[in-house]
Amino acid sequence: MSALPPPLPDPAPLVARIRTIPDWPKPGVLFRDITPLLLDPQAFRLLVDTFVIRYMHEKIDRVAGIDARGFIIGSVVAHQLNAGFIPIRKAGKLPFTTLRERYTLEYGEAEVEIHTDAIEPGARALLIDDLIATGGTMVAAANLLTRLGANVVETAAIIDLPALGGSARLREAGFSVFTLCSF
Amino acid sequence: MSALPPPLPDPAPLVARIRTIPDWPKPGVLFRDITPLLLDPQAFRLLVDTFVIRYMHEKIDRVAGIDARGFIIGSVVAHQLNAGFIPIRKAGKLPFTTLRERYTLEYGEAEVEIHTDAIEPGARALLIDDLIATGGTMVAAANLLTRLGANVVETAAIIDLPALGGSARLREAGFSVFTLCSF
Repeated sequence: MSALPPPLPDPAPLVARIRTIPDWPKPGVLFRDITPLLLDPQAFRLLVDTFVIRYMHEKIDRVAGIDARGFIIGSVVAHQLNAGFIPIRKAGKLPFTTLRERYTLEYGEAEVEIHTDAIEPGARALLIDDLIATGGTMVAAANLLTRLGANVVETAAIIDLPALGGSARLREAGFSVFTLCSF
Repeated sequence: MSALPPPLPDPAPLVARIRTIPDWPKPGVLFRDITPLLLDPQAFRLLVDTFVIRYMHEKIDRVAGIDARGFIIGSVVAHQLNAGFIPIRKAGKLPFTTLRERYTLEYGEAEVEIHTDAIEPGARALLIDDLIATGGTMVAAANLLTRLGANVVETAAIIDLPALGGSARLREAGFSVFTLCSF
């Protein structure tokens, strides 16, 4: 990232449109639901603009989004930055030759994949998802971009859940992190 | 749709960037892979512009995209049309109260869901996915919008596979269909 990132819009109107669903997907979890934000064209536009303003001078070649909510924001930001879009998906979903990266879940393991032709060595990539929780998927996805030789300019999300340690884990792994809000 | 839809860009540069993967996900299937199209910013822009030109005078309130590749195109078209975006997802993925619609697969059944607050009665919806094959998911998704009282202006995709009958099935169910190309 540049030394002086540009001033960004106040995220309060976005945060106000994130809905909290108690006990989903299981008891004790407060799920942060971005769908009301996406339904409101003004809020959706402000959300996208926030990312676009932050990255418009960063010469982003490709925006990678993580399956599936990361596709929603990542593709719009890619389009606005005039960058290509890379889908990073759960294992078995991409049809061409892929790289895979395994990561640990609360119970068990999972894998994410990227197409091997998704980005060229030295190209500048932005990685986007909706939310950073434990950071397992995001670290794995950022590693996939790095393994293809990309320069991961930043890993970005709408929401950070810092108590779950994901953003700290991304920074420990050497990646810059940007989120619009924290819960 | 309006009586006279506007002239659209030549889809040839888009079609040239759709990659055919033989025998995926199983022997005998020719999979149409849109990821090279998404990687190329010019092609990606032309793709989005084609949908935007077609619908810019249709007063679309919400664009619904089908999990997961439909999210990639649907969200960008929503943003460009200044419409809200509705994710339609496989069962169990949406956290708020939902409507479900069951449909038949080649082997077995599947379900898609929509949030009950995704759209208001009478609002104008555009439904987008990447590809229409048998049309099962698309008909089910369009039915969900209709059950919420929405006016489904059109069901749209990049690719039609007419031999599999999906676009015909959508038209039989009373929905208008638009695709950029056929294989």
